[in-house]
Amino acid sequence: MNFEERQSKRAKSVKSSMIRELLKYVSDPTFISFGGGAPDPDTFPRNEMAEIAKEVIEKEYRFTLQYGLTEGDPILREEFIKLLNRRYGIEGLDVENVVITVGSQQALDLIGKVFLDEDSVYFISAPAYVGALSAFLTYSKNYITIPLEDDGLSMDILESKLKELDEKGELKKLKFVYTVPTFHNPAGVTMSLEKRKRLIELSERYDFIIVEDDPYSALRYEGEDLPSIFKLAGKERVILLNTFSKIFSPGVRIGAVVGRKDIILKVSQMKQGADLCTPSLTQRLTARYLQRYDIFEHLKKAIEVYRKKRDLMLKGIEENMKDVDVKYVKPMGGLFIWVKFPDEFDTLEMLEIAKKNKILYIPGSAFHPDGGGRNTLRLSFCLPPEEKIVEGMRRLGRTIREYFKGV
Amino acid sequence: MNFEERQSKRAKSVKSSMIRELLKYVSDPTFISFGGGAPDPDTFPRNEMAEIAKEVIEKEYRFTLQYGLTEGDPILREEFIKLLNRRYGIEGLDVENVVITVGSQQALDLIGKVFLDEDSVYFISAPAYVGALSAFLTYSKNYITIPLEDDGLSMDILESKLKELDEKGELKKLKFVYTVPTFHNPAGVTMSLEKRKRLIELSERYDFIIVEDDPYSALRYEGEDLPSIFKLAGKERVILLNTFSKIFSPGVRIGAVVGRKDIILKVSQMKQGADLCTPSLTQRLTARYLQRYDIFEHLKKAIEVYRKKRDLMLKGIEENMKDVDVKYVKPMGGLFIWVKFPDEFDTLEMLEIAKKNKILYIPGSAFHPDGGGRNTLRLSFCLPPEEKIVEGMRRLGRTIREYFKGV
Repeated sequence: MNFEERQSKRAKSVKSSMIRELLKYVSDPTFISFGGGAPDPDTFPRNEMAEIAKEVIEKEYRFTLQYGLTEGDPILREEFIKLLNRRYGIEGLDVENVVITVGSQQALDLIGKVFLDEDSVYFISAPAYVGALSAFLTYSKNYITIPLEDDGLSMDILESKLKELDEKGELKKLKFVYTVPTFHNPAGVTMSLEKRKRLIELSERYDFIIVEDDPYSALRYEGEDLPSIFKLAGKERVILLNTFSKIFSPGVRIGAVVGRKDIILKVSQMKQGADLCTPSLTQRLTARYLQRYDIFEHLKKAIEVYRKKRDLMLKGIEENMKDVDVKYVKPMGGLFIWVKFPDEFDTLEMLEIAKKNKILYIPGSAFHPDGGGRNTLRLSFCLPPEEKIVEGMRRLGRTIREYFKGV
Repeated sequence: MNFEERQSKRAKSVKSSMIRELLKYVSDPTFISFGGGAPDPDTFPRNEMAEIAKEVIEKEYRFTLQYGLTEGDPILREEFIKLLNRRYGIEGLDVENVVITVGSQQALDLIGKVFLDEDSVYFISAPAYVGALSAFLTYSKNYITIPLEDDGLSMDILESKLKELDEKGELKKLKFVYTVPTFHNPAGVTMSLEKRKRLIELSERYDFIIVEDDPYSALRYEGEDLPSIFKLAGKERVILLNTFSKIFSPGVRIGAVVGRKDIILKVSQMKQGADLCTPSLTQRLTARYLQRYDIFEHLKKAIEVYRKKRDLMLKGIEENMKDVDVKYVKPMGGLFIWVKFPDEFDTLEMLEIAKKNKILYIPGSAFHPDGGGRNTLRLSFCLPPEEKIVEGMRRLGRTIREYFKGV
């Protein structure tokens, strides 16, 4: 049986992400990986989680071991709304504005399913989060990229592309602008308040939806919080994606979509066909944790851990990349540092030398669906212990010097 | 912002399933529901699960609370392969033949994603499992229905439809035949060995894939096991879907796709974009349970419980539906009884009287995407306690008599 012939077009065009492909090296303990964005498991509240898991299975087994509502555990949705209010000042939500998803990756997939036909147009940043790409590309390949600047998406370029669409009479095909405004993955940058306001203005003028993906904003190491786009503009034309993966644990796979009730209803209907419901067990476990503990108080320890790791990595760049003209933005939060090398660099090519030196990173081209970014790479500082960050940056320095000699 | 205009075509055409819609009545304790197929939570091994959950969070937190491989927990895949061997005599599998999914609903969605373009053709039974319909219809509406007989799909009609496709030169568009051969949902019937063999023959002659969905075969109350199609034909052109929802707990959301390595790789790649990975916590919990306990030994108690409930419901039909010419097949296993009324019945219409009498069932039309089945309904005996089955069948009898007077 020839399987190749029988695949759907979308299946034929999909490839494994480079990040997943690099996983096979990660299990080798002689490697140091700055690749994946997996958080440090020592930051997870495991003792509290273990107690609660046991308890909710024993006492609430009729809920936790059973099928649940597609929209998600009502108690978790309530607690999540309280959290959004307390941490981000978001008001006016009730449970029908929220659907719980299997991580925010499923949220991205469902957004694609709900909005995108094959000819639909959407905007993403360059570089872009690979998870969003792999979700959206399944449904439509008509993305338009907008360059990221140090203070977020270029609004001038976005506006000119919107005008172009308008002039071609194609605004009707435009579905949304997808953005990670705070501590961008992979670029580490944060969209300024001014640009947030301008994006909202543009969305009103050109009548499009903003999909705001916010996995990292609670992981701020310095500076002042900026209001989320959802907080600024309200839910009329903003959909907020969130996740517990970076502030609690990715192993529970709890994400959420927040938005207008008509949109949330449709997302839930699409989720019915996708997996019926998110596991009741991990939802109730998360809900009871939120009721009993202050998740942001717990997160303070994680923030300390990550700030120190970030600083070590920044120091590692200073110390080990003196010979090359590198550019990077010090991230105020999140998990990534984005490094730009001179134009002649090809970080995918350099990865072979890196593997020899037992150090891993993600080449920037992985975040550019239409090519480009070959002279960039993403470093993640969240998972390796401190001494491995120091040693890893030495290996990376050596890799760059060896590659540079060859270039 | 006009959301209606912005939806994808697939989103516009989707509706909530009737089963999910009826859920709102289920929370009212004055109702008795024979609607959903949720198993009896008292059959779940909750004490063992509670202990293991606590332990795997405390001791294996680096795995259970972290992101995992898209393909699934390697230990769970190993244990699942052993289970398939021990219970079904399936041999020759290794971990690369298995991907773990968020329940078998996700397995169905991924099968749709991997195989179906908008113009792809696939065969389903009439009546058909609604979860499969809601997954596949998202990708292609070109299904062809094959009537179910008391011994499974009509092979004569399948063959004649295959010939038709061949004559029209459209065999290339055919992707698969989807079937629940054992204890069909909703029809309760089981495909005979003869028909299983004939289906395999046809698949070889007309070169198509068989998607065998097998959630219920371990729940046999009488009679002898039949070999699965996957066991009979091997993995060359059969894909097996399985789930722990009916034999362990649906709240952990653990399903699986078993098949050729090239197919499984592609299913995993599509899963990457869908949700990155199934929760590590519920996977490892299931794996450790399988290592420590004999799940089929535990299941014996559940089988006793369900057999008794089935018998009570069958008795209820005998006692309460004397006035009407009803037809049904006594199911040898699974969770459902399918009842056929005289042609003039409309069970969707009758549902209004049923609601008044505080009894719920699923009208047969819900299982017929192209209409039909209006004189049928599905009864599920798994969830209500015994006394409620007795009382519920009385209410259903009353409902039928009241409706019959009106017809």
